[in-house]
Amino acid sequence: MIKKLLIANRGEIAVRIIRACKEMDIETVAVYSEADKESLHVQLADEAYCVGPKTSKDSYLNFTNIISVAKLTASDAIHPGYGFLAENSDFAELCRECNITFVGPSPEAISKMGTKDVARETMRKAGVPIVPGSQGIIENINDGISIANDIGYPVIIKATAGGGGKGIRVARNEEELKKGISITQQEAATAFGNPGVYLEKFIEDFRHVEIQVMADGHGNTIHLGERDCSIQRRLQKLVEETPSPVLDEEIRAQMGEAAVKAAEAVDYMGAGTIEFIYDYQNRKFYFMEMNTRIQVEHPVTEMVTGVDLIKEMIRVASGETLSLKQEDVVFNGWSIECRINAENPEKNFMPSPGKIEMYLPPGGLGVRVDSAVYPGYSIPPYYDSMVAKLITYGATREEAVSRMKRALSEFIIEGVHTTIPFHLKLMDHEKFKDGDFNTKFLEKYDVMNS
Amino acid sequence: MIKKLLIANRGEIAVRIIRACKEMDIETVAVYSEADKESLHVQLADEAYCVGPKTSKDSYLNFTNIISVAKLTASDAIHPGYGFLAENSDFAELCRECNITFVGPSPEAISKMGTKDVARETMRKAGVPIVPGSQGIIENINDGISIANDIGYPVIIKATAGGGGKGIRVARNEEELKKGISITQQEAATAFGNPGVYLEKFIEDFRHVEIQVMADGHGNTIHLGERDCSIQRRLQKLVEETPSPVLDEEIRAQMGEAAVKAAEAVDYMGAGTIEFIYDYQNRKFYFMEMNTRIQVEHPVTEMVTGVDLIKEMIRVASGETLSLKQEDVVFNGWSIECRINAENPEKNFMPSPGKIEMYLPPGGLGVRVDSAVYPGYSIPPYYDSMVAKLITYGATREEAVSRMKRALSEFIIEGVHTTIPFHLKLMDHEKFKDGDFNTKFLEKYDVMNS
Repeated sequence: MIKKLLIANRGEIAVRIIRACKEMDIETVAVYSEADKESLHVQLADEAYCVGPKTSKDSYLNFTNIISVAKLTASDAIHPGYGFLAENSDFAELCRECNITFVGPSPEAISKMGTKDVARETMRKAGVPIVPGSQGIIENINDGISIANDIGYPVIIKATAGGGGKGIRVARNEEELKKGISITQQEAATAFGNPGVYLEKFIEDFRHVEIQVMADGHGNTIHLGERDCSIQRRLQKLVEETPSPVLDEEIRAQMGEAAVKAAEAVDYMGAGTIEFIYDYQNRKFYFMEMNTRIQVEHPVTEMVTGVDLIKEMIRVASGETLSLKQEDVVFNGWSIECRINAENPEKNFMPSPGKIEMYLPPGGLGVRVDSAVYPGYSIPPYYDSMVAKLITYGATREEAVSRMKRALSEFIIEGVHTTIPFHLKLMDHEKFKDGDFNTKFLEKYDVMNS
Repeated sequence: MIKKLLIANRGEIAVRIIRACKEMDIETVAVYSEADKESLHVQLADEAYCVGPKTSKDSYLNFTNIISVAKLTASDAIHPGYGFLAENSDFAELCRECNITFVGPSPEAISKMGTKDVARETMRKAGVPIVPGSQGIIENINDGISIANDIGYPVIIKATAGGGGKGIRVARNEEELKKGISITQQEAATAFGNPGVYLEKFIEDFRHVEIQVMADGHGNTIHLGERDCSIQRRLQKLVEETPSPVLDEEIRAQMGEAAVKAAEAVDYMGAGTIEFIYDYQNRKFYFMEMNTRIQVEHPVTEMVTGVDLIKEMIRVASGETLSLKQEDVVFNGWSIECRINAENPEKNFMPSPGKIEMYLPPGGLGVRVDSAVYPGYSIPPYYDSMVAKLITYGATREEAVSRMKRALSEFIIEGVHTTIPFHLKLMDHEKFKDGDFNTKFLEKYDVMNS
């Protein structure tokens, strides 16, 4: 078993991982940027080392310094959390070369899934449904036009090196397609160092439904059900829940099986998520992408399955087999997560960093808070604006929603603006309460003025 | 369904009840003493009214003022919480006369269970095992001596109007018995206005194991498993858990059945607890007393059964049938509660009221905090010293304990002394970790210096 773990991350996910380690009697090493020396993850870890200045590139993305701290502290493993180095196959490769356990999949699996056209092709071969589109990267604009004519407009142009909502563009006709391809190629070259783009049929109305998978190094892969993450703002998830209000048992079973197949196709190990486009009108789902890491929204899965996903990741990275088989995965009740961001929902969600003057998280039955803030903490402007994840659990969706409303109403964060007022409005929105929404929900409804 | 509920209590239990009401869309009315106007329950309720000065007798026990507020606010029900008026049959009777729903059992049930010798006799008739002893109150000292000779020393002298560890005394020989009877009679006359005492065989080494029951007004009574509350200090519970580390399935089933019988014998309605003396060496259990109210330690039962006991109380008080049958009660995992008191464990648990300068409750998976404090809150010296209940949940006892240790270690309460250091030591105690303890544990082991 891993004895000492370096957490190459910050914020709530660093705290989450430290908590799991404390419960497993594993020593923890935190790393931090100069802007984060007062952070909770620094205070909670057994040891903490500064790895660079405030800019992520020089601190949380600094391979050399992070590996040096791991060596210096005799850490036998590194957990990357999400974001930063979590899906960087070069970093995973470097860990391997330095004989440090990377708590995650192999560099090869990260790389295959990170290159979107390769992932698409791998899924097609594995029999996982993919959206109709180009086979691999499109060679030139004429190629693109011909494929678009085949599959029909609208189409979506995707940078193969993109992901998480970045490097994508919709084209509704040939004119838009021509422009779109060259702009996306240029942007992708700049942002990801890879200009390759491919085409897919654009499905207008869909729900974002994803499946949590978990695999060990002994050939066992299971799934832990779905999460519905359709409430998004500019492709960033704001609210996630499990189960999905629109999945029936048949689709759920098919999606679960497809996700396991997807993971097996890349010899996956650890926690991963297969994201699907769910065309609910036609009860069809298509592979969107795989996130080869733990996700922000993992707690809702933990609430309904009782499985501690971070502990499970650490166990399988240590060489153990999965602690449960597919038939042992039992789902109970309903869970919802609201991402509480330091943003002003009255002003187009403008970031609102600053000092938290008063802080009191909600408590009581069925309420979980994952956060790295405390009274007097100053939220730095350099990173992600998420300050807390508020997760509720209930026997039914109705109870989980009413509990979320109650918990939001008693959550005190003073000194900065937060998205709490937005979530309160959302919980009261008739369409949300009915579970009747897709990824365009926030374009269609002005929740703040509802 | 109840539309507006007055909560005749303070502290964490008042907050707990308000939370349930918010989730059920029931309006809430708080009452408070002059010492409690800054309390969290006052802030969270829809309305709040002062019912008297700091002394409980004149505020939280003030029948007239509380009933007046209920009438004034058109509250259709009163929840008494625990302590104060919760087991006062006169108050329950007054509610009935005033046409206000008392969220609890009938005055008759309270009265029968509150008079200890009557309760004992009722249990005997209902076939619930009772400790060998006198049949009803002992008439005189000679009577007592003859009974003690029959059942054998040591015996325990109990005031019939006592309870919760008050009004009891052990006698190991005739001399002690003679003295004990008259002292207990005098004390009981003063404290409870009733000098009656009875005798029971004193079982030296036992575990305190209790069963949660829930009944509706339609003839349905179920139990929700046991809680082991053997970690006590001067008969006050400090740590509770479910399941009990020492109960096997056979005893568990028998105890559950006995508890249902006990509740049915007094036509019980609502949430109640049958406390048993569990003589684990001989695998025998005996009725100790029934608490005709919700208990401090109810959350551990909620964690493993998924049942919201407060909501269930409110539903059955509203006339609904129980939301589940005995066969629907499923137990998952393990849960432990530590009572965090504002006391100094280094100085014989001396109360430590005062201002909380810094407050940060722990969070994350499997952690629940029920509390009524906040940063800057001043704990008044007039009431109970409990400031928070920390509850953890895990798949196994080992996980619940390791999670408790982790949660205790990150719980920040500055400005007052708390029992957190005691609980941290306890979680590391080999005997506790092995589940090997009885009610004398804290007499036997000096946990703070272990």
